[in-house]
Amino acid sequence: MQEIVAVNGQIFKPEEARISVFDRGFLYGDGVYEVARSYNGIFFGLEDHIDRLFHSAQMIDLDIGLSRVGLIKEIYRIHRESQIPDSYMRVVVTRGEGRINLDPAASTKANIVVFIRPLDPIDPAFYEKGVDLIMASVLRNTKKALDPNVKSGNYLNNILALAEAKKKKAYDALMINREGYVTEGTTFNIFFVKNKTIVTSPDEADILQGITRKTLIKIAHREHLKCETRFFTPQELKNADEAFTSSSVKEVMPVRTIDGVKIGSAPGELTKKFSQLYKQYVADYCKHHKTV
Amino acid sequence: MQEIVAVNGQIFKPEEARISVFDRGFLYGDGVYEVARSYNGIFFGLEDHIDRLFHSAQMIDLDIGLSRVGLIKEIYRIHRESQIPDSYMRVVVTRGEGRINLDPAASTKANIVVFIRPLDPIDPAFYEKGVDLIMASVLRNTKKALDPNVKSGNYLNNILALAEAKKKKAYDALMINREGYVTEGTTFNIFFVKNKTIVTSPDEADILQGITRKTLIKIAHREHLKCETRFFTPQELKNADEAFTSSSVKEVMPVRTIDGVKIGSAPGELTKKFSQLYKQYVADYCKHHKTV
Repeated sequence: MQEIVAVNGQIFKPEEARISVFDRGFLYGDGVYEVARSYNGIFFGLEDHIDRLFHSAQMIDLDIGLSRVGLIKEIYRIHRESQIPDSYMRVVVTRGEGRINLDPAASTKANIVVFIRPLDPIDPAFYEKGVDLIMASVLRNTKKALDPNVKSGNYLNNILALAEAKKKKAYDALMINREGYVTEGTTFNIFFVKNKTIVTSPDEADILQGITRKTLIKIAHREHLKCETRFFTPQELKNADEAFTSSSVKEVMPVRTIDGVKIGSAPGELTKKFSQLYKQYVADYCKHHKTV
Repeated sequence: MQEIVAVNGQIFKPEEARISVFDRGFLYGDGVYEVARSYNGIFFGLEDHIDRLFHSAQMIDLDIGLSRVGLIKEIYRIHRESQIPDSYMRVVVTRGEGRINLDPAASTKANIVVFIRPLDPIDPAFYEKGVDLIMASVLRNTKKALDPNVKSGNYLNNILALAEAKKKKAYDALMINREGYVTEGTTFNIFFVKNKTIVTSPDEADILQGITRKTLIKIAHREHLKCETRFFTPQELKNADEAFTSSSVKEVMPVRTIDGVKIGSAPGELTKKFSQLYKQYVADYCKHHKTV
């Protein structure tokens, strides 16, 4: 069981995995990526992640150079080498190397880097008591300039928001768009519950359409819970009965405060329920999926 | 005379210059950079470029780990190794390597990469006849999300605009902001002339405040030419008597068309004058500056 990195299929120890300084990911953030979590050897929702990776790539006209199935097989091959059943996997695809020039035509072959490591332990207190978020002053990138639904190598916007949170001793940050609506967190989507109705930002907001978010919406419908995807303000969020974040790595995480304002209860009843339903959904998925 | 790359001071042939895949520049575009051009061994405006690099770094709270003077000395040391009198120099400073985690605290030591290569020849026809630009449909990043005056490793916004231009067989692209005003090109500022008045976008627009732009404004004032920095629309630009772009590498370049609309004359009289005055300004600068 060891952390490994594969660069264009060749496996390295982390400290030996290197890339050309002419890689366009390094020079311009000109690439796309995905993160998935494996549960006892099975990556939950890997097809969805790879679909989104291809969507991101298509949005910036990047040719990954492999088929979806080919990439999934490759990820499982590398994962087997790592022998880490419960892992964090990151796949980065850049537009490759070339003479320094913004023109995408300067490179013709993508570089693919796959990172596999054991899942970091997450402090159980975060799940038991909830986390403290802030509303960042930096706005979320707008779709019209750099679409947040392209999961790209341009993550400074998110880093600036997270840095604001860390300066304020908070756990993480949410961002609003120019119209003042809540979009998402730095690496997660946001949900809240008010009067038993579950609310999350719509696809039309400037968000990355999370796989966990999609799964939670599906679960809500299956359970006949009232679930709305619509715009909302920070004020509405702060007045919620409960709130939680969703991400592939951290799953469902309760929110205790936002800008120091206590959210009703953390974890709230529906948050706990969703957390359990999600875990069950993942377990069922993994039972019915095989590695390839 | 050979192209070289220095990674944290160590000099490599281009094909051997590599960086860890854990570098935050590669993962998130979490870095800053500058480009300068040397004229017979002297980098024009290097102090200004390094000041701007430190400004960019400060805006994202990145510690370069060297003083301004230390970095300038280092660039000249590497430049001497290359023995290229007329060179293109790019210095990239990333937040360094660390465990994968958006938190800037995950890395504590910057990586510095300096690229030196001969200046690419630029087709003289571009200077003689002007270049064809488009107004990109992608908007310029907004200051409130990702400030264009931070010259960072997040350049997808610019790449998307350039890709639009290339698809339309144009030379390059200009971008507007959300209010519909012209901001800048993908790697250059834009000027136009109407009734002998020179106009360029103001610092308050979503632009990178170019060193060449600043120099041209200074020259205009010195020559008692009317020069305004103010907002303007694509329509006003297309109605100009002449237009030109400014950049450290390409200096003053006339614009022939924008979206297929012919601009008065290319090169126009003031464009030619500015081009010569700029070359003279650079020559004077280089005469009075030494390598360090």
